Amino acid sequence: MPGNSFGKLFKITTWGESHGKAVGVVIDGCPPNIEIDSLAIQKMMDRRRPGGSSASTSRKESDKIQIMSGVFNHKTTGTPIMIWIENKDSDSSAYEKYKDIYRPGHGDITYQAKYGTRDWRGGGRASARETAARVAAGAIAKEILKKENIDICAYTLELGSIKVKKININESFNNNYGCPDNSVVKEIEKRVSDIKKKGDSLGGIVEIRATGVPMGLGEPVFDKLDADLAKALMSIGAVKGVEIGTGFRVAEMLGSENNDPIEPDGYRSNNSGGILAGISNGDDIVIRSAVKPIPSIMIEQDTIDTDKNPKKISIKGRHDISAIPRINVVCEAMVSIVIVDHLLRQRAIS
Amino acid sequence: MPGNSFGKLFKITTWGESHGKAVGVVIDGCPPNIEIDSLAIQKMMDRRRPGGSSASTSRKESDKIQIMSGVFNHKTTGTPIMIWIENKDSDSSAYEKYKDIYRPGHGDITYQAKYGTRDWRGGGRASARETAARVAAGAIAKEILKKENIDICAYTLELGSIKVKKININESFNNNYGCPDNSVVKEIEKRVSDIKKKGDSLGGIVEIRATGVPMGLGEPVFDKLDADLAKALMSIGAVKGVEIGTGFRVAEMLGSENNDPIEPDGYRSNNSGGILAGISNGDDIVIRSAVKPIPSIMIEQDTIDTDKNPKKISIKGRHDISAIPRINVVCEAMVSIVIVDHLLRQRAIS
Amino acid sequence: MPGNSFGKLFKITTWGESHGKAVGVVIDGCPPNIEIDSLAIQKMMDRRRPGGSSASTSRKESDKIQIMSGVFNHKTTGTPIMIWIENKDSDSSAYEKYKDIYRPGHGDITYQAKYGTRDWRGGGRASARETAARVAAGAIAKEILKKENIDICAYTLELGSIKVKKININESFNNNYGCPDNSVVKEIEKRVSDIKKKGDSLGGIVEIRATGVPMGLGEPVFDKLDADLAKALMSIGAVKGVEIGTGFRVAEMLGSENNDPIEPDGYRSNNSGGILAGISNGDDIVIRSAVKPIPSIMIEQDTIDTDKNPKKISIKGRHDISAIPRINVVCEAMVSIVIVDHLLRQRAIS
Amino acid sequence: MPGNSFGKLFKITTWGESHGKAVGVVIDGCPPNIEIDSLAIQKMMDRRRPGGSSASTSRKESDKIQIMSGVFNHKTTGTPIMIWIENKDSDSSAYEKYKDIYRPGHGDITYQAKYGTRDWRGGGRASARETAARVAAGAIAKEILKKENIDICAYTLELGSIKVKKININESFNNNYGCPDNSVVKEIEKRVSDIKKKGDSLGGIVEIRATGVPMGLGEPVFDKLDADLAKALMSIGAVKGVEIGTGFRVAEMLGSENNDPIEPDGYRSNNSGGILAGISNGDDIVIRSAVKPIPSIMIEQDTIDTDKNPKKISIKGRHDISAIPRINVVCEAMVSIVIVDHLLRQRAIS
Repeated sequence: MPGNSFGKLFKITTWGESHGKAVGVVIDGCPPNIEIDSLAIQKMMDRRRPGGSSASTSRKESDKIQIMSGVFNHKTTGTPIMIWIENKDSDSSAYEKYKDIYRPGHGDITYQAKYGTRDWRGGGRASARETAARVAAGAIAKEILKKENIDICAYTLELGSIKVKKININESFNNNYGCPDNSVVKEIEKRVSDIKKKGDSLGGIVEIRATGVPMGLGEPVFDKLDADLAKALMSIGAVKGVEIGTGFRVAEMLGSENNDPIEPDGYRSNNSGGILAGISNGDDIVIRSAVKPIPSIMIEQDTIDTDKNPKKISIKGRHDISAIPRINVVCEAMVSIVIVDHLLRQRAIS
Repeated sequence: MPGNSFGKLFKITTWGESHGKAVGVVIDGCPPNIEIDSLAIQKMMDRRRPGGSSASTSRKESDKIQIMSGVFNHKTTGTPIMIWIENKDSDSSAYEKYKDIYRPGHGDITYQAKYGTRDWRGGGRASARETAARVAAGAIAKEILKKENIDICAYTLELGSIKVKKININESFNNNYGCPDNSVVKEIEKRVSDIKKKGDSLGGIVEIRATGVPMGLGEPVFDKLDADLAKALMSIGAVKGVEIGTGFRVAEMLGSENNDPIEPDGYRSNNSGGILAGISNGDDIVIRSAVKPIPSIMIEQDTIDTDKNPKKISIKGRHDISAIPRINVVCEAMVSIVIVDHLLRQRAIS
Repeated sequence: MPGNSFGKLFKITTWGESHGKAVGVVIDGCPPNIEIDSLAIQKMMDRRRPGGSSASTSRKESDKIQIMSGVFNHKTTGTPIMIWIENKDSDSSAYEKYKDIYRPGHGDITYQAKYGTRDWRGGGRASARETAARVAAGAIAKEILKKENIDICAYTLELGSIKVKKININESFNNNYGCPDNSVVKEIEKRVSDIKKKGDSLGGIVEIRATGVPMGLGEPVFDKLDADLAKALMSIGAVKGVEIGTGFRVAEMLGSENNDPIEPDGYRSNNSGGILAGISNGDDIVIRSAVKPIPSIMIEQDTIDTDKNPKKISIKGRHDISAIPRINVVCEAMVSIVIVDHLLRQRAIS
Repeated sequence: MPGNSFGKLFKITTWGESHGKAVGVVIDGCPPNIEIDSLAIQKMMDRRRPGGSSASTSRKESDKIQIMSGVFNHKTTGTPIMIWIENKDSDSSAYEKYKDIYRPGHGDITYQAKYGTRDWRGGGRASARETAARVAAGAIAKEILKKENIDICAYTLELGSIKVKKININESFNNNYGCPDNSVVKEIEKRVSDIKKKGDSLGGIVEIRATGVPMGLGEPVFDKLDADLAKALMSIGAVKGVEIGTGFRVAEMLGSENNDPIEPDGYRSNNSGGILAGISNGDDIVIRSAVKPIPSIMIEQDTIDTDKNPKKISIKGRHDISAIPRINVVCEAMVSIVIVDHLLRQRAIS
C-alpha cells in the first residue's frame, strides 16, 4: 500500500522528485472559508529554502509556490488544494557518477532493492527537496491554527554538539541557525565552518513547541497524539529519534518526580510534554527530533556499486553541512499538520 | 476519526476496558493457511501476564485467549480473526474513590476532557490491560514472521537507572526482568524492592531487535518503516521516546562517523538501525523505547477533583512498580505487527 | 488489503462465520454519551431473525446481542463498542456433503480460489449470518440518528414479481413481508408458498427511505453520499443492483423531465432521490436494491466438485425462499451507518 | 473526512476545478517498472475530450496530459505519478449570471449548503471536467492490466430511449456514440439532433465489460468487488444506478433461472456478472450505469436564487446533450482502477 499520504481529516499527499519538473502536494480536507495569505505561506517556504546559513547547500531555488486549485477569491473552498513548487536549479549531470554506486547513509541501496529501479538524479524521491511540499501544506495548516490561537514553533536545541543554554524563541528568528539562544550562535558558526573545511557534516536536535492546543486532541489507542507526532517527525529523512516532554530521561526518573501534579489552573510541571494517555492535556506540547548528520560528505567512504563491487566514494556537490536549521520548519510543518488533523477529528465527535 | 485500528494490510482493531467483560482484538488481513499454534500464542501472552516479577501487580489474570473466528482446522482462513481475553480479577470497588478525582500522570483528566465522560473503573480504556489484545495480535504476526525466518525480540536495556552491560538475548528469558545481562539482575531486584517499599515507581528503556528482515520494506515518504515503528511504539501507554539505531546520539556525531560503510556482503556498522530512507536495508532493525515510571504511586501527590478543587491523592492498589518487563512483549508485538504489515505491503508491488 | 471494515468516522468491523462460535462487530467512532437502548437494538435484531415469515429458514437463533465494551452506565463512552451474537443453532453436519462441491450461485468456488481454503460449514464467512453484526451496528447508528430526527426505513417494493401498488410505511410493520401495501400481501404469500413447494426461490426489490437528512452530507468527488450508499448496499450478499431516486428510468427521460425544479421551500419533485452532485439536498433520500433469489434451491443443478468433475446438486436444508424480508433491515442498517458516518464527517469541517 | 481519493493500493487523488488553472491526479501505488506509453494515454484522453459527437459541448480543450513525477526513462518508479491537464478554454464570464442562482439538477445548491461557499465558475469542482483526471489515472491502470491480459471496455447500451440490438464492441469504436451496434447509430443521431433543437437533453445506459479478470479478486465482506465497482461508478456525476450481471431483472427471476450452472471449464450462463459473493469468478465482469440527462438545458425552469427568491432559469452555454458517449471512457477508467486495485490487494495475501 502506497505511503505518500499523511493525515486523515486534513490529508496531504506529496509528489515529485528532486530533479523532476516539480514537487507538490494535494491537501484534501482543508475546511472551507480559510483565508489564504500567500505571503505567509511564502515566508514559511523561505525558512526551508537553501542558502540561509553557511550550513546550507548553494543550490538556488526560489521555491515560489503555485496554488493550482481549492482556493477561490483568496479563500479555501473545501475542495483539494494543489500547490506545487517548480524545480529550477536541478543539475542532474553532477549525479551521473552516482548512477551505479550506492552512497552510504542514503536511500540509494534501499530504493533499488524495494522498487527494482530508482531515479538517481539528485536522490529522486528520497531527496529532502520533497519536504518543500510538506512545508507548503504546513503553511496552510498554520493558517487554520492561527484562527484557533494555536502557535507552533521549531528551533535548534543542539547542533554539532553545541547545546543552547536557554530558550528564547524570538532569538531563533534572529540568527541563521534557528537558535533560540544568541549566545551560542558564534560557537555554532565556528563549528560549522570547521567541519565544512574537513568535508564532513553535523547532527543535532530540534525542539518543537505547540502552545494553545486545547485539551482533548488525540485518538486512543493507536492514533494517540504523541503516536501521530512521532510518526510525523520520524517520517522526515534525517530524523532518527523522537521524544515527548522529558523523553528518554524518564528512564532514570521516579514516578514521584515524573508525574506532573495537577493544580486548579494547570500543571505544576510539564514532564508529560502536554500529552497524557495520548490526548493533549492543555499544557504546551513539547517534542524533540534527533537529526543525523547529512550523509553526503566529501571525505572518502567505502561502498559498493550496483554490481556489488567494493568502491570508494567521495561526494562533492552542493550539500548542506547539517539538516539543521532547514529541517526545523519541516518539523514545524509536520507538527502543525498533525494538530490540525486532530482538531478536525475531535470536532467530529464533539 | 476513531483511532483503535493499526496497520493497513495486517490490520488490528482492539476493544475493551480494564474492568469491562473482556478485552479483545479483530485481526483483519491475516493471510490464509497460516498454522495457528495456540500454545505459542499463550506463551507470548504469559510474558505480559501480571505476576512474573516483583515489579508486577498482584492482579491475577490467566489471560487465556479465545479465538472466536477466522481459524478453521487450526489454520487461518483469510477472514477476520477475533481473539478475546476475559477480565476475571477486576475489582472496581478499589477504584470507586478515584471516580471524582484525577490521578496525576494518568489519562483521567484528558479522557474526561475529550469524551465528556469516562469509564473510571481500573482506568477503563486507558488501562495497560488493553495491551493484552495487542500481544494476542502480535503472536499471530509472529507466526507469519516465523515462516519468513524473521525473529523479533524485546529486552530490557535499563531499569531504574541500572543499565545492562552486555546484550545476550538468551539471558533475557532466564530472569524476571527480561534482562539480557544476568550480571545486573540482582542489582535491579534490589532497586525494585527499595522503590517498592517507598511506594514509588521506576522507568527504563526497552530495546527491540528484528533479525532476518529482508531489504525493501517500508513505504516512503510517510509510511516509512521507521515512521510506522515510531508510531507503533509511541502508541503504547508508558512510552515517551523512540529512537532507531544510534538514535539521539547521532546529534553529536559527524557524518563520517554515523554513515555505515557498505561492503559487498553488508554494512560495516549499524548506526542506521537497519533502515535507510525509511526502507529496511537488510541489517538488524534496532529500536528503543523510553518507558516512564508507572504513574500510580503510593506517595501522596497534589491533584484536583472533577470540580477543580485541589486534592491530595495517594494510590494504593495492585500496581506494577515498573512497566518493564511486562511492556517488553508489548513492544515486541507492535514491532511484529509493523513488520508483517510491511511484508504484505511490499508483496503487493513485487 | 482486508475488507471487513466499513465507514470512516463511524467505522464498523465485522467478524465471524456462520457456524463458528459467534458473529460480531466492533464499532469504532461512535460519539460518547449516546444513550443505548438495548431493547431498541434487540427489536431491530429481531427483524432480521429467522422465522418471521414463511419465506424464512427454520434455523432457530435468538440472536441476543451482548455488548462487551464501550458502554458504561447505559451510555457510550467514545471507545470501541464490541457487540456479539452467539451462533447457537448451527448444524454443520448438514453441510458435510457440500465440503467438496461448489454450490451454484454461492461463494464456495470464489472463496476457494481467493484464499486456497474455505470454512465450508454453513457458508462460513459468506453466509448471510454475518449481517446480524451489521444490524447490531446499524441499531447503534439509529440511536444517533434518532437524536438528529433522522429516520430510515426499508420496505419491500417487489417480491416474486409481485409489486406493491402504494407505499404506506406503517403497513410494512404489520405483515410478515415488510410490505408497505397490505393489499398485495395475500398474493405474495401465495407466490412464496407455491415456489416453496417447487423447491425454488424468489428475488425482489427493497426500497430504503431516509427522512430528515440535513443538506450538505456527502464528500465529493469519490465519497459522494450516493457512491457510499451504493457500496453499502452492494456489499450485501444478495444485492445485484442499486439505484437512487428515479434510478434506471433516467435513461429514458429528458433533462426537462428529470430535473427537480427548486422552490423556496424545497423541490417540486424528487427524481434526484435527495442527492445532488453527491451531496444530500434536504429532500428524502430514496434508494432501491435489487435482490437476487436465494441460490440454495432444492431443484437439481449442474455443478462441479473441487476436483473439477461435473456433479449434480440439490440443496436441502433450512433456507429462506427469499432474502426478502429479512434483508430489508440489513439494507436499513447499512444506510443508517452511511448517514451517521457522513454526519460526523460533515461536523469535522463545519 | 475528505473524499477526493479512491482506491487503496492503487490510489488516486484528483484535484482541480472546471475553470481553475488545471485539473489533475496523483496516482500513488502504481507498481514500478510499468512502461508508460504516452500515446496510449493521450488516445484514451481523446475519447473523453469534447467535440467528438454532436451530443458534445463545443468547448475546445486539447486535454494534453503532462506527467510531472513518478516516471523515469519511460517507466514508472513506484513513486507518486502526478498528471495534470491544463484548462485552456474556460470562459467564466458565461457563468457570472449563475453566481447567485441555483441551476436545477446541479450541485450548486448542495455545494453552497455543504461548504458555505462555492466556486461557481463552470460548476467548479462538481464539473464533469474533473473526470479528465480520472481518465488519465485509468489510462495508467490500463497499462498495468495490459500486462495481465485484462481488457476493459465501455460502450453505449441505450441513449435517448434508443437501445442497441446487439453488442459488437468493435463497432463501438467506429461511430461517434460509442455504440456497439452500427445499425442504430442513425436513429440515435436523429434523436440527439431533435432534442438539441428543443434545448433539452437525454439520458442513457452504459455497459462496461471486463474480460480476462482472474478468479479471486474482491475483499469481502465490505470491499467486495461489486461493492467497489458500484461505488466507483456511482461516484461519477451523472450516474444514478448501477447493476451487475442480470442486475435489476433478478427481482423477477427464480433461483433456478438465475443461478449459473458450473461446468468443468466455466459457467453455463453469466447472470452473476462475473462476481460471486463479492469475488471475481473468472467469467466476464459485466456492469451497467444509468446515466441521467445533462441538467443544463435551454428550456426554462423554475428555481431560486441564493436568497431563496423564486427565479426562472434557462441555461445557454456550451453543454453536451447527453453525458454519453463522453462518460463511457470515464466508466471504463473507474472500472480499470478498481480492477488494478484489487489485483494488487490480492497479491498481498497470495
